[in-house]
Amino acid sequence: MEILDLDPIIHERVRLGIMTLLLQAGELDFGTLKRELGVTDGNLAQHLRVLEEHGLIEVHKAFVGRRPRTTYTLTPEGRRRLWEYLERLSALLRSLKKPGPRARR
Amino acid sequence: MEILDLDPIIHERVRLGIMTLLLQAGELDFGTLKRELGVTDGNLAQHLRVLEEHGLIEVHKAFVGRRPRTTYTLTPEGRRRLWEYLERLSALLRSLKKPGPRARR
Repeated sequence: MEILDLDPIIHERVRLGIMTLLLQAGELDFGTLKRELGVTDGNLAQHLRVLEEHGLIEVHKAFVGRRPRTTYTLTPEGRRRLWEYLERLSALLRSLKKPGPRARR
Repeated sequence: MEILDLDPIIHERVRLGIMTLLLQAGELDFGTLKRELGVTDGNLAQHLRVLEEHGLIEVHKAFVGRRPRTTYTLTPEGRRRLWEYLERLSALLRSLKKPGPRARR
Protein backbone atom coordinates (compact mmCIF):
# COMPACT_ATOMS: atom_id res chain seq x y z
CA MET A 1 0.00 0.00 0.00
CA GLU A 2 1.52 3.34 -1.17
CA ILE A 3 0.94 5.19 2.07
CA LEU A 4 3.28 2.91 3.97
CA ASP A 5 5.91 3.64 1.30
CA LEU A 6 5.88 7.26 2.47
CA ASP A 7 9.27 8.05 3.96
CA PRO A 8 8.70 7.79 7.75
CA ILE A 9 11.66 10.06 8.54
CA ILE A 10 10.07 12.87 6.52
CA HIS A 11 6.37 12.12 7.17
CA GLU A 12 6.40 13.04 10.88
CA ARG A 13 4.70 16.47 11.11
CA VAL A 14 7.44 18.52 12.79
CA ARG A 15 10.13 17.04 10.53
CA LEU A 16 7.96 17.59 7.45
CA GLY A 17 7.52 21.17 8.66
CA ILE A 18 11.27 21.66 9.07
CA MET A 19 12.07 20.27 5.62
CA THR A 20 9.40 22.22 3.75
CA LEU A 21 10.42 25.46 5.50
CA LEU A 22 14.04 24.84 4.45
CA LEU A 23 12.89 23.98 0.91
CA GLN A 24 11.20 27.35 0.67
CA ALA A 25 13.70 29.52 2.57
CA GLY A 26 16.96 27.78 1.72
CA GLU A 27 18.58 28.42 5.11
CA LEU A 28 17.01 29.12 8.52
CA ASP A 29 18.23 29.41 12.10
CA PHE A 30 16.93 27.56 15.16
CA GLY A 31 14.92 30.49 16.46
CA THR A 32 13.08 31.02 13.19
CA LEU A 33 12.27 27.31 12.85
CA LYS A 34 11.00 27.29 16.41
CA ARG A 35 8.77 30.35 15.87
CA GLU A 36 7.40 29.15 12.52
CA LEU A 37 6.61 25.67 13.86
CA GLY A 38 5.48 26.71 17.33
CA VAL A 39 7.30 23.83 19.02
CA THR A 40 9.52 23.62 22.13
CA ASP A 41 13.33 23.82 22.00
CA GLY A 42 13.63 20.18 23.03
CA ASN A 43 11.11 18.94 20.47
CA LEU A 44 12.73 20.90 17.64
CA ALA A 45 16.27 19.84 18.64
CA GLN A 46 15.23 16.18 18.73
CA HIS A 47 13.72 16.29 15.21
CA LEU A 48 16.67 18.26 13.82
CA ARG A 49 19.00 15.58 15.22
CA VAL A 50 16.99 12.80 13.49
CA LEU A 51 17.11 14.67 10.16
CA GLU A 52 20.84 15.32 10.51
CA GLU A 53 21.58 11.68 11.45
CA HIS A 54 19.72 10.59 8.29
CA GLY A 55 21.75 13.01 6.16
CA LEU A 56 18.72 15.08 5.17
CA ILE A 57 19.84 18.40 6.64
CA GLU A 58 23.18 20.08 7.31
CA VAL A 59 24.08 22.18 10.36
CA HIS A 60 26.14 25.36 9.95
CA LYS A 61 27.77 26.99 12.98
CA ALA A 62 29.06 30.55 12.64
CA PHE A 63 29.55 33.69 14.78
CA VAL A 64 27.69 36.94 14.35
CA GLY A 65 30.03 39.27 16.18
CA ARG A 66 30.68 37.24 19.31
CA ARG A 67 27.36 35.42 19.24
CA PRO A 68 27.21 31.85 17.92
CA ARG A 69 24.56 31.33 15.24
CA THR A 70 23.41 27.88 14.08
CA THR A 71 21.59 27.55 10.78
CA TYR A 72 20.24 24.62 8.83
CA THR A 73 19.97 23.73 5.14
CA LEU A 74 18.70 20.73 3.19
CA THR A 75 21.43 18.44 1.87
CA PRO A 76 21.17 17.44 -1.80
CA GLU A 77 19.97 14.03 -0.57
CA GLY A 78 17.42 15.72 1.69
CA ARG A 79 16.11 17.82 -1.20
CA ARG A 80 15.89 14.72 -3.44
CA ARG A 81 14.08 12.61 -0.84
CA LEU A 82 11.68 15.47 0.03
CA TRP A 83 10.66 15.87 -3.63
CA GLU A 84 10.25 12.09 -3.91
CA TYR A 85 8.05 12.13 -0.78
CA LEU A 86 5.97 15.04 -2.11
CA GLU A 87 5.53 13.35 -5.50
CA ARG A 88 4.29 10.16 -3.80
CA LEU A 89 1.93 12.18 -1.66
CA SER A 90 0.55 13.98 -4.73
CA ALA A 91 0.07 10.68 -6.57
CA LEU A 92 -1.73 9.28 -3.53
CA LEU A 93 -4.04 12.31 -3.34
CA ARG A 94 -4.81 12.07 -7.06
CA SER A 95 -5.69 8.37 -6.63
CA LEU A 96 -8.06 9.23 -3.78
CA LYS A 97 -9.84 12.00 -5.63
CA LYS A 98 -11.03 9.53 -8.28
CA PRO A 99 -13.61 7.05 -6.74
CA GLY A 100 -11.62 3.80 -6.36
CA PRO A 101 -12.71 0.63 -8.22
CA ARG A 102 -13.86 -0.92 -4.94
CA ALA A 103 -15.73 2.13 -3.62
CA ARG A 104 -19.23 0.89 -2.77
CA ARG A 105 -20.57 4.08 -1.15
CA MET B 1 2.54 26.75 9.96
CA GLU B 2 -0.06 24.71 7.97
CA ILE B 3 1.73 21.39 8.35
CA LEU B 4 1.23 21.39 12.10
CA ASP B 5 -2.49 21.99 11.46
CA LEU B 6 -2.62 18.56 9.81
CA ASP B 7 -4.82 16.33 11.92
CA PRO B 8 -2.33 14.24 13.98
CA ILE B 9 -4.85 11.44 14.51
CA ILE B 10 -5.16 10.95 10.75
CA HIS B 11 -1.59 11.87 9.69
CA GLU B 12 0.11 8.83 11.26
CA ARG B 13 0.94 6.48 8.35
CA VAL B 14 -0.90 3.31 9.42
CA ARG B 15 -3.99 5.29 10.45
CA LEU B 16 -3.89 7.27 7.20
CA GLY B 17 -3.65 3.93 5.40
CA ILE B 18 -6.66 2.53 7.27
CA MET B 19 -8.81 5.57 6.56
CA THR B 20 -7.96 5.86 2.87
CA LEU B 21 -8.57 2.14 2.36
CA LEU B 22 -12.00 2.51 4.02
CA LEU B 23 -12.70 5.63 1.94
CA GLN B 24 -12.11 3.61 -1.21
CA ALA B 25 -13.65 0.28 -0.20
CA GLY B 26 -16.45 1.44 2.09
CA GLU B 27 -16.17 -1.52 4.47
CA LEU B 28 -13.24 -3.87 5.18
CA ASP B 29 -12.47 -6.61 7.68
CA PHE B 30 -9.43 -6.90 9.95
CA GLY B 31 -7.69 -9.49 7.81
CA THR B 32 -7.95 -7.43 4.62
CA LEU B 33 -6.70 -4.28 6.36
CA LYS B 34 -3.78 -6.25 7.79
CA ARG B 35 -2.85 -7.72 4.38
CA GLU B 36 -3.20 -4.42 2.50
CA LEU B 37 -1.13 -2.52 5.05
CA GLY B 38 1.39 -5.26 5.83
CA VAL B 39 1.34 -4.56 9.57
CA THR B 40 1.17 -6.84 12.63
CA ASP B 41 -2.11 -7.70 14.40
CA GLY B 42 -1.08 -5.70 17.46
CA ASN B 43 -0.05 -2.63 15.47
CA LEU B 44 -3.27 -2.63 13.44
CA ALA B 45 -5.47 -3.22 16.50
CA GLN B 46 -3.81 -0.34 18.35
CA HIS B 47 -4.40 2.12 15.48
CA LEU B 48 -7.98 0.92 14.94
CA ARG B 49 -8.62 1.56 18.64
CA VAL B 50 -7.29 5.13 18.38
CA LEU B 51 -9.48 5.83 15.33
CA GLU B 52 -12.54 4.35 17.06
CA GLU B 53 -11.91 6.31 20.28
CA HIS B 54 -11.80 9.52 18.20
CA GLY B 55 -15.09 8.62 16.48
CA LEU B 56 -13.49 8.35 13.03
CA ILE B 57 -14.35 4.70 12.35
CA GLU B 58 -17.12 2.33 13.39
CA VAL B 59 -16.73 -1.35 14.28
CA HIS B 60 -19.34 -3.88 13.09
CA LYS B 61 -19.45 -7.33 14.66
CA ALA B 62 -21.43 -10.06 12.87
CA PHE B 63 -21.39 -13.83 12.37
CA VAL B 64 -20.74 -15.61 9.09
CA GLY B 65 -22.23 -19.00 9.90
CA ARG B 66 -20.75 -19.59 13.32
CA ARG B 67 -17.62 -17.52 12.71
CA PRO B 68 -17.44 -13.98 14.13
CA ARG B 69 -16.52 -11.36 11.56
CA THR B 70 -15.43 -7.82 12.48
CA THR B 71 -15.56 -5.10 9.83
CA TYR B 72 -14.84 -1.40 9.88
CA THR B 73 -16.34 1.66 8.17
CA LEU B 74 -15.68 5.39 8.30
CA THR B 75 -18.15 7.36 10.41
CA PRO B 76 -19.63 10.49 8.78
CA GLU B 77 -17.30 12.51 11.05
CA GLY B 78 -14.36 10.35 9.96
CA ARG B 79 -15.19 10.89 6.29
CA ARG B 80 -15.52 14.65 6.84
CA ARG B 81 -12.24 14.96 8.74
CA LEU B 82 -10.40 12.79 6.21
CA TRP B 83 -11.53 15.01 3.32
CA GLU B 84 -10.54 18.11 5.34
CA TYR B 85 -7.12 16.55 5.97
CA LEU B 86 -6.68 15.64 2.29
CA GLU B 87 -7.72 19.16 1.18
CA ARG B 88 -5.15 20.71 3.54
CA LEU B 89 -2.49 18.34 2.27
CA SER B 90 -3.31 19.24 -1.34
CA ALA B 91 -3.17 22.96 -0.55
CA LEU B 92 0.19 22.44 1.15
CA LEU B 93 1.57 20.56 -1.86
CA ARG B 94 0.33 23.26 -4.24
CA SER B 95 2.06 25.93 -2.11
CA LEU B 96 5.32 23.97 -2.24
CA LYS B 97 5.25 23.45 -5.99
CA LYS B 98 5.35 27.21 -6.57
CA PRO B 99 8.77 28.68 -5.43
CA GLY B 100 8.00 30.40 -2.10
CA PRO B 101 8.55 34.19 -1.70
CA ARG B 102 11.54 33.51 0.57
CA ALA B 103 13.16 30.84 -1.59
CA ARG B 104 16.79 31.95 -2.07
CA ARG B 105 18.11 28.83 -3.80
